[in-house]
Amino acid sequence: MTTLSPERYKGLLVIQDGIGDRPIEVLGGKTPLEAASTPHMDALIGHGISGIMDIVAPGIKVGTDVGHLALFGQDISAGSYGRGPMEAAGVGIALEKGDVAMRFNFATVDETFHVLDRRAGRIRAGTDLLTASLNEIRLEDGVEVLFRPATEHRGVLVLRGNQLSDQISDSDPGDRDRGRVQEVRPLIDHPDAHRTARLVNELVRKSYQVLQPHAVNRQRQNEGKPSANIILTRGAGAGRPYINLSEKLGRKVACISGESTVLGIAHLSGADPIVTGSMTANLDTNLPEKASRAVEALRDYDLVYLHLKGCDIAGHDGQPELKKQFIEQTDKMVGEIRRQVEGRNLYFAFAGDHSTPCALGEHSGDPVPVFLSGPDVRIDQVQKYGERPCAQGGLGRIRCRDFLATLFDYLRV
Amino acid sequence: MTTLSPERYKGLLVIQDGIGDRPIEVLGGKTPLEAASTPHMDALIGHGISGIMDIVAPGIKVGTDVGHLALFGQDISAGSYGRGPMEAAGVGIALEKGDVAMRFNFATVDETFHVLDRRAGRIRAGTDLLTASLNEIRLEDGVEVLFRPATEHRGVLVLRGNQLSDQISDSDPGDRDRGRVQEVRPLIDHPDAHRTARLVNELVRKSYQVLQPHAVNRQRQNEGKPSANIILTRGAGAGRPYINLSEKLGRKVACISGESTVLGIAHLSGADPIVTGSMTANLDTNLPEKASRAVEALRDYDLVYLHLKGCDIAGHDGQPELKKQFIEQTDKMVGEIRRQVEGRNLYFAFAGDHSTPCALGEHSGDPVPVFLSGPDVRIDQVQKYGERPCAQGGLGRIRCRDFLATLFDYLRV
Repeated sequence: MTTLSPERYKGLLVIQDGIGDRPIEVLGGKTPLEAASTPHMDALIGHGISGIMDIVAPGIKVGTDVGHLALFGQDISAGSYGRGPMEAAGVGIALEKGDVAMRFNFATVDETFHVLDRRAGRIRAGTDLLTASLNEIRLEDGVEVLFRPATEHRGVLVLRGNQLSDQISDSDPGDRDRGRVQEVRPLIDHPDAHRTARLVNELVRKSYQVLQPHAVNRQRQNEGKPSANIILTRGAGAGRPYINLSEKLGRKVACISGESTVLGIAHLSGADPIVTGSMTANLDTNLPEKASRAVEALRDYDLVYLHLKGCDIAGHDGQPELKKQFIEQTDKMVGEIRRQVEGRNLYFAFAGDHSTPCALGEHSGDPVPVFLSGPDVRIDQVQKYGERPCAQGGLGRIRCRDFLATLFDYLRV
Repeated sequence: MTTLSPERYKGLLVIQDGIGDRPIEVLGGKTPLEAASTPHMDALIGHGISGIMDIVAPGIKVGTDVGHLALFGQDISAGSYGRGPMEAAGVGIALEKGDVAMRFNFATVDETFHVLDRRAGRIRAGTDLLTASLNEIRLEDGVEVLFRPATEHRGVLVLRGNQLSDQISDSDPGDRDRGRVQEVRPLIDHPDAHRTARLVNELVRKSYQVLQPHAVNRQRQNEGKPSANIILTRGAGAGRPYINLSEKLGRKVACISGESTVLGIAHLSGADPIVTGSMTANLDTNLPEKASRAVEALRDYDLVYLHLKGCDIAGHDGQPELKKQFIEQTDKMVGEIRRQVEGRNLYFAFAGDHSTPCALGEHSGDPVPVFLSGPDVRIDQVQKYGERPCAQGGLGRIRCRDFLATLFDYLRV
């Protein structure tokens, strides 16, 4: 049992990625969260104040990146932060001035560069070996290339050198266009952008030459799995300054997550990333491990973010039952944390970064249900964690920055 | 009985300073407002539309100054208005261009300038005599000094002359640091700021020489009360233009209050201040007097602000029972006003400038409960004035400027 010091108010902010949903027929017209049995979260919400939250504004859908930027107190109204730099931070690469970072997926293409599987069968094993081989690729003098694997089929590519630009398009055709690998184009008419686009196109072509005959892929073919025979790049960015949340609050902040994007944003926002090998950013993440790390972190930190990706995965895959089950598993995790932590000075906060309705299979602009539970909140009548119960709650409908400010106000920062 | 003219719509806006609170155990988990018996306000809210209001945004706590600036229709997003100039206006000093105004407290220090009591035992009697002696202090040529007493231990200091700057720090160490009297420092590296800081430091030192042996303090010592033997300055400001609410609305506006900050903001916002000697800006203010002045003012004015400080005082002092009792007394005052005023064209509005939860003893970012009652509002189901009933009201959760705009819209401005 961890008893928190009485002098300081602490907060545990549980972020269920993609938790928001819409009513689903097979769940009797309920959302997965409404349909789930969640006794532990309900016990908290019964002593809490709830509401519905828009990350940017009602009806505006956001990605995991923007959702988490907002949740980590960044000013998302100020334009793009660049996905590449976040991912680079997530895998521990400190960008230097002039670097251009982008994300990549290992993907499966045929010999005419038609994309057969944008995620190479969600490859897990062997990406370190594939990446090591990619790092042997040489470009022209003065440009260094750095590949780094991230979770599953994801990775980070950093170009280092002079006269580079992040104003380039993606080679990844995206989910909606399973056509050919896209030619990377400069987004502005500047020599640096033209040059960087040319270099990335060269890298994509060379990646096929390196990966197609790779031993890891010969093995995958033998096992009937799709080859990870190319990289698809996206989200080039040169990085920009982040607000340091920890400094701003004068409090120690940590983030537990298995997802590199989230860890990257946390790191760039001044929160210490906490991750272990069994945190997968998927439905099979090690929830008991996350619970015990959260309990541990609450000793040393004032504010702990606990990120769970499962709902988003189930939402993208159109699996309401899986989403409901994952919520029920996380509820058990919450119960475990409550059994191990006590203290009159602990606030629980529950939120999401966006909605991922199963029927859509992608993000939507629906608000996410949120609540705050702890000493002296204005407890409202809401008894069940869910989209529609929370819409009746005492917080009303609020923006992400306002929800955060309310949490920080409770923490007496 | 005052019967209002049928041609014009009139409004009485009752501002309970610091009314918002959090659930309190000794009140059975209710807030002081929820626990209070408020039949007259409930009769109004039963024919009204209610909501919860954020002055700036959810979770953002504000001072009485910013709260009232917002309530008087000023644009608080545009940065600091300077507390000194407000206080100066509150005691009837019209600032001239180049003047620097600041607030001061009479305080008690020992001979090494350690602060023993930041408010000199909340001194009331004798501050006029002390101030008269302070006004005999002479600084260098070309700088005029003007001390003026305000409520209780508070006062206003104005420096008049050329080459002065409001970019200086406070000599008041504040509530959180009961250390020594602070050396006033320039906040910018400009000769005017250096000079003004030096002059204020000189004034603080001289105030001790004048006040320490003062007859008023000899008398206080005999009575066992702390000496008001120094001034602590804060909130220097040169003033800035205010929106004239009266002109903007094309309506006559008045403000009844016993607090100089509020009266100052009212005056600067184009509202006529109404104050008499028995209005104390404390729990012992003369509520029947405020009621009769309100009734009187509603004859001549279109919009009357009625400010009550008691809830804030009780909140700061951590006294939930006192806060509840003060609310019950104000409810009787409301009943008295209703008995004396009738008219189909009168709107009652109830609001606060911020929350001051008793358990915190300071302001918080919690929203304040509000309502509007009068002809043709969309009456909602709320029957009791309180934080949580109002959170279910028909106005929803709104910002101060939006609440004001709604009131003005009812007034047909």
